[in-house]
Amino acid sequence: MVVILKPNPDKAQLRGLLTWLESKGVGVQTTVGAQQTILGLVGDTSAIDIDLISALDIVEAVRRVQEPYKSANRKFHPSDSVVSVGSVKIGGGGFVGIAGPGAVENEEQICSLAETLKSLGANILWGGAFKSRTSPYSFQGLREEGIRLLIKAKKTSGLPICAEISEPSQLDLLGDVDLLMTGGRNMRNYELLRAVGKSKKPVILKRAVSATYEELLMSAEYIMSSGNPDVILCERGIRTFEPQTQFTFDVSAIPVLKQLSHLPVIADPSSASGKYTLVEPLALASAAAGADGVIMTVHADPAHAMCDGPLSIRPDRFERIMKKTAVLRSADI
Amino acid sequence: MVVILKPNPDKAQLRGLLTWLESKGVGVQTTVGAQQTILGLVGDTSAIDIDLISALDIVEAVRRVQEPYKSANRKFHPSDSVVSVGSVKIGGGGFVGIAGPGAVENEEQICSLAETLKSLGANILWGGAFKSRTSPYSFQGLREEGIRLLIKAKKTSGLPICAEISEPSQLDLLGDVDLLMTGGRNMRNYELLRAVGKSKKPVILKRAVSATYEELLMSAEYIMSSGNPDVILCERGIRTFEPQTQFTFDVSAIPVLKQLSHLPVIADPSSASGKYTLVEPLALASAAAGADGVIMTVHADPAHAMCDGPLSIRPDRFERIMKKTAVLRSADI
Amino acid sequence: MVVILKPNPDKAQLRGLLTWLESKGVGVQTTVGAQQTILGLVGDTSAIDIDLISALDIVEAVRRVQEPYKSANRKFHPSDSVVSVGSVKIGGGGFVGIAGPGAVENEEQICSLAETLKSLGANILWGGAFKSRTSPYSFQGLREEGIRLLIKAKKTSGLPICAEISEPSQLDLLGDVDLLMTGGRNMRNYELLRAVGKSKKPVILKRAVSATYEELLMSAEYIMSSGNPDVILCERGIRTFEPQTQFTFDVSAIPVLKQLSHLPVIADPSSASGKYTLVEPLALASAAAGADGVIMTVHADPAHAMCDGPLSIRPDRFERIMKKTAVLRSADI
Amino acid sequence: MVVILKPNPDKAQLRGLLTWLESKGVGVQTTVGAQQTILGLVGDTSAIDIDLISALDIVEAVRRVQEPYKSANRKFHPSDSVVSVGSVKIGGGGFVGIAGPGAVENEEQICSLAETLKSLGANILWGGAFKSRTSPYSFQGLREEGIRLLIKAKKTSGLPICAEISEPSQLDLLGDVDLLMTGGRNMRNYELLRAVGKSKKPVILKRAVSATYEELLMSAEYIMSSGNPDVILCERGIRTFEPQTQFTFDVSAIPVLKQLSHLPVIADPSSASGKYTLVEPLALASAAAGADGVIMTVHADPAHAMCDGPLSIRPDRFERIMKKTAVLRSADI
Repeated sequence: MVVILKPNPDKAQLRGLLTWLESKGVGVQTTVGAQQTILGLVGDTSAIDIDLISALDIVEAVRRVQEPYKSANRKFHPSDSVVSVGSVKIGGGGFVGIAGPGAVENEEQICSLAETLKSLGANILWGGAFKSRTSPYSFQGLREEGIRLLIKAKKTSGLPICAEISEPSQLDLLGDVDLLMTGGRNMRNYELLRAVGKSKKPVILKRAVSATYEELLMSAEYIMSSGNPDVILCERGIRTFEPQTQFTFDVSAIPVLKQLSHLPVIADPSSASGKYTLVEPLALASAAAGADGVIMTVHADPAHAMCDGPLSIRPDRFERIMKKTAVLRSADI
Repeated sequence: MVVILKPNPDKAQLRGLLTWLESKGVGVQTTVGAQQTILGLVGDTSAIDIDLISALDIVEAVRRVQEPYKSANRKFHPSDSVVSVGSVKIGGGGFVGIAGPGAVENEEQICSLAETLKSLGANILWGGAFKSRTSPYSFQGLREEGIRLLIKAKKTSGLPICAEISEPSQLDLLGDVDLLMTGGRNMRNYELLRAVGKSKKPVILKRAVSATYEELLMSAEYIMSSGNPDVILCERGIRTFEPQTQFTFDVSAIPVLKQLSHLPVIADPSSASGKYTLVEPLALASAAAGADGVIMTVHADPAHAMCDGPLSIRPDRFERIMKKTAVLRSADI
Repeated sequence: MVVILKPNPDKAQLRGLLTWLESKGVGVQTTVGAQQTILGLVGDTSAIDIDLISALDIVEAVRRVQEPYKSANRKFHPSDSVVSVGSVKIGGGGFVGIAGPGAVENEEQICSLAETLKSLGANILWGGAFKSRTSPYSFQGLREEGIRLLIKAKKTSGLPICAEISEPSQLDLLGDVDLLMTGGRNMRNYELLRAVGKSKKPVILKRAVSATYEELLMSAEYIMSSGNPDVILCERGIRTFEPQTQFTFDVSAIPVLKQLSHLPVIADPSSASGKYTLVEPLALASAAAGADGVIMTVHADPAHAMCDGPLSIRPDRFERIMKKTAVLRSADI
Repeated sequence: MVVILKPNPDKAQLRGLLTWLESKGVGVQTTVGAQQTILGLVGDTSAIDIDLISALDIVEAVRRVQEPYKSANRKFHPSDSVVSVGSVKIGGGGFVGIAGPGAVENEEQICSLAETLKSLGANILWGGAFKSRTSPYSFQGLREEGIRLLIKAKKTSGLPICAEISEPSQLDLLGDVDLLMTGGRNMRNYELLRAVGKSKKPVILKRAVSATYEELLMSAEYIMSSGNPDVILCERGIRTFEPQTQFTFDVSAIPVLKQLSHLPVIADPSSASGKYTLVEPLALASAAAGADGVIMTVHADPAHAMCDGPLSIRPDRFERIMKKTAVLRSADI
């Protein structure tokens, strides 16, 4: 951390700052310039609250040098982490396909889709149960019943299952779910992150549509510092000015997150684009950019889906995407 | 709602759509152009899920004509709503000052600040208890104890109090709080919105940093359709590319929201800017643009605040802002 | 185009609007709803200025149904356009590599780099001459001399060359240049676009960092309606809130632009990311998403480049990218 | 400037960097931490090209401490600059109203409007001549003839006039214009900025819709370093995700730019919002936030304006805004 002082800082206040920094185990080296004095902080500054320094009268600005995340930081854990979901491995070189419907609608729908997806190469089944809809007048999902049907589809198909958690109190209901997922709108729901951290279940942590890479990694830090190392990062689009896609898929997040962190990184091209015609090119782009997998919304009959129809692909498209990414991966790209 | 069909739509599918629309009580008028056919939907379309139509094979695009929110819509409620918090009225022409510390730190701090703020013209006291911090290693607030101290300050000062709610289970703890507030990161936490709706307590609904005006009004709709009409909208900055402010304060939100909705609109210049030097100009700009009040972070000694020091103003600055906005308002601006 | 009228529109004004629309050759069909009346405009509305209608007292809103661009629109030109630059074809299935230094520095540098790039599979050489730098105190390029050296490298290497044009008056100087390029900051420099249109030289039209897809296509329309059909669209990153990349590379632009338009689409991963470590993953992602080529900044010794060092890749990396994209393309991805 | 080195930097390269920095007259102080070594650069670093350092193999990151702009920097020029346009003073405490039509349409229109505006308190007349329209099929302005009519209106009304310049070659035509203006899309048109700098005419420099405050000030630096100190900064909205306004008016730009720079700052609420109903609240907000003036689009009959009708206010609204801002200013807000 580098602290830039205002011109002619009050000496007593400066002494107070130096003493406080030393008490935190941080060394300080001072650079006196013609116009400005700079303090270089040496040691582990990740527990120093930057605001406590910025607020001081003698301080003009503070710049971080070291990343504020530790557990998720590749610097302290150089090799790729691999997260196990049943027998499926995420990270470390493979490419997984997670697929399922925007909403679980009934037993026949989810069980038959699970069977189809398994035969087409899907590794994990997911399905929406508690739907968060912009309008209170839209279909809100089957909720508890949706989870029960998803668990049924796990038994009939043999696929591990993934479901979204939006409140700590849902952990009991999700006992048989293999992989949790936190939605983008909950990326800064810290109570939830702590609860997921204590649960020790593998979890997909989705980036919020307005979050920076660093903020995403700080949310991973909440889960990991609560005792759960099995975090999978997920890029799902950010909000920009472009109206033709629901969100702007930030493909750079994949290589940058993999540089900054050892955690696996997957992509959600369905939620990002909001358009079924873009799922294939964005899934292929994700694989080419180094993602460890994709999560996609698949429905046997999108035109009659109870929600997310416009962004759902049909199973045959899912199969084509999985085949193409396999070729792409075998070519070592 | 206007539905634009693809060229040469399948006749059976088109008949299916028309039948379904009629079953929803919506009339349809068809415009046949050289290149495109357009369906004009007539009647109340607020309960029509736009995705169900967009997903159809015969549909190219759907455009809304009518707003998707009803309870919050000024078209159906032309006069300004006024929300009462104890004896304080928000909306309808006045201008309220809500003020308090980013974090309640101890009894002496909050009770003495409450006293000061009351004497300087504050209408409502607020204080942070459950703090949501980006880093798990930062101070997380006094939590339950913070709420208890805030209630104590209500008794000693006589000011009504405002506190943030982040989980439905906190409603009991917040029984003596006069005005709830939901944070920007919870604007789409629909379980929470429904719980707040059922509580019937007045609530400040903060805009998420990536939410459009329409999405904010749809969140108000969740609260209102659950039985609670006492919603106060709050602009608190949106995320943009500009790094010199924490968020970009969107002053246009004030007049636009007041055009679209009858609900009161206030502003939070402290959270928006993240800088104490910008609180005064942004508070004055809000008043000039027609806001019904401001909520500001005030601390007796910002340099030693346990959090939010860089954005906290001192009580004397608060007093100056309240005096200036009073002049501004009396000049009928 | 759909015109939504305010309730109870003035009859004389409505008659005036209808008469004016008919005089423009546009048919009108009226849908009368309980709350609103909608006019459906039938025929070619691309020459109707939407603002002229929006400004009327009786009009609440206007929604486009038809795209405002014609020459660039795939609807009127279903097959892919192919642009020829010397013997190089851009569009229609191939994948071209355009490469060169951020700044032409001297004869030895550009001629030797051209030789190397040709041997490694580059199709077109580019080089910066008139540099637009944020600071007036930074190196501004060799300017006219830079163009002359680039033309020299064309002769010695046999590669066609590409150079940026920033003013109509530069057209003479660029007479021997095979492919023009307009920078993102000039996407709305309409004098320049018209001049490029009249020149009939093939041109790469870069998207501005804040432009929507539709605005990019409208800028193509300026060039094409001035007589030049040989436009290549280029995605080069948009401005967002993420600070770790210079811009956010919008990979979705590639498939969406190819859906909307018949023009070739290429990508510039160097300018987008501003980081040499991201050029390879973003170039591969572009190819996977369907781009017709990439333009990349290459330097023999980035650490000593006179500008753009941080985003320049070395020739060996360029070679690896071209080999990988060839594999990827041969796998029909 | 602070340079953060990678772990275990190559010694010869480090020596090379230190020697080069000394040759530029910059002192260096080294802070050796457990994980990282930091170089603190002391002295005037505004002429150091940050990219030249970032590109080095031994460098992890570079952080600026000092602002990269000098002439526009308040640190080196603490008192407010005042720009004179004829007898009108902009900056230093007053509040000016600049007003006129989006397009000069004919002599009667502009001369009569100029008369009206003068009588209602306008300080400067502006009018659009070379219009930059998104569509090549829209009205492009009267161009040269528009400038001639504007000069005529200057003579008949006695008001100083302001016109946009979009190419260096227009300087001759604009000889009788008192105040130049560069459009947001030209903020990084450095040839134009240099030409305006050499012209020595006062100029309004509009912020690009995607430019940071620092980039705007760097563009001012281009003009000022070419010999022209009379630059007026203008906030005119930035591009964000909100669709209900044309751009998002960034009111914080006003106080922040005034903190960073001594130059006058005005606002353009018409271009920012694109809606005539928002011009008044945004103009008042600008005045309250400390702006030195506003530029507004005014038309006697917006419904029949040849362009910009939806954002044009009528003269009576202009009068009301000027009266209200005068009250607001006299109250020392």
